[in-house]
Amino acid sequence: MSVNNISAVFQGGMNFTADLNGHKIEIDTDAAGGGNNIGTRPKVLMLASLAGCTGLDVVSILNKMRVTFSDLSINVEGNLTDTDPKTYDKVVVNYSIKVSKEDEPKVLKAVKLSQEKYCGVTKMFESFAKVSFKIHYL
Amino acid sequence: MSVNNISAVFQGGMNFTADLNGHKIEIDTDAAGGGNNIGTRPKVLMLASLAGCTGLDVVSILNKMRVTFSDLSINVEGNLTDTDPKTYDKVVVNYSIKVSKEDEPKVLKAVKLSQEKYCGVTKMFESFAKVSFKIHYL
Repeated sequence: MSVNNISAVFQGGMNFTADLNGHKIEIDTDAAGGGNNIGTRPKVLMLASLAGCTGLDVVSILNKMRVTFSDLSINVEGNLTDTDPKTYDKVVVNYSIKVSKEDEPKVLKAVKLSQEKYCGVTKMFESFAKVSFKIHYL
Repeated sequence: MSVNNISAVFQGGMNFTADLNGHKIEIDTDAAGGGNNIGTRPKVLMLASLAGCTGLDVVSILNKMRVTFSDLSINVEGNLTDTDPKTYDKVVVNYSIKVSKEDEPKVLKAVKLSQEKYCGVTKMFESFAKVSFKIHYL
């Protein structure tokens, strides 16, 4: 059994400073929400979690496959429901990567392994959203 | 319909820099995972998302109720399953706050409104985990 643990301390206005095992993240709203945009809106942190989780999987798998790659980036689009409380109902994970033409099937394999087998954040997202992915070869 | 959008760019090693609408967050693994601990592990970002979401709700509701408070912090414990892919199955949201004794019922009301009605991140977590909360009056 393992437990993850974070804390967030209210700083005033609409600003919280979250401490993630020593890594600080500022959370705030924009002016419309009464804040000062000192940090990110909280809900998008879930998309960053997903990008990081699958990104680390893909890097790790490509390294094991000895695939040379560059310019890897991951863009995540999360569609929100119209009704409150707003939740993500459709999420698209876009992988952009530069590899040789012959390594493209290995990239597809790495992405599929992450999305279908390894990435716990994808698994959690699939409980409430339709998650799909696209690969963009640069 | 609204869409949230983030990107994460691979920097080398196991490090991604995520851009959340202009707010940068470093993601990395520790040495055991091949990284350099430059930033947070991705999965804990989900807990920070939950803390921020409900935290902003509670601040907003207490302000509307004209409740004077201080020392508000939120600690989130996420229990992970033993089997891969590891997901959160039990999550406890701990609110710590200093208010006058007579305002304690208002704090409980604010927390319940967030947890049961307003917080979309809680709603998403409830699709895959048992979410509970505790309030600690300082």
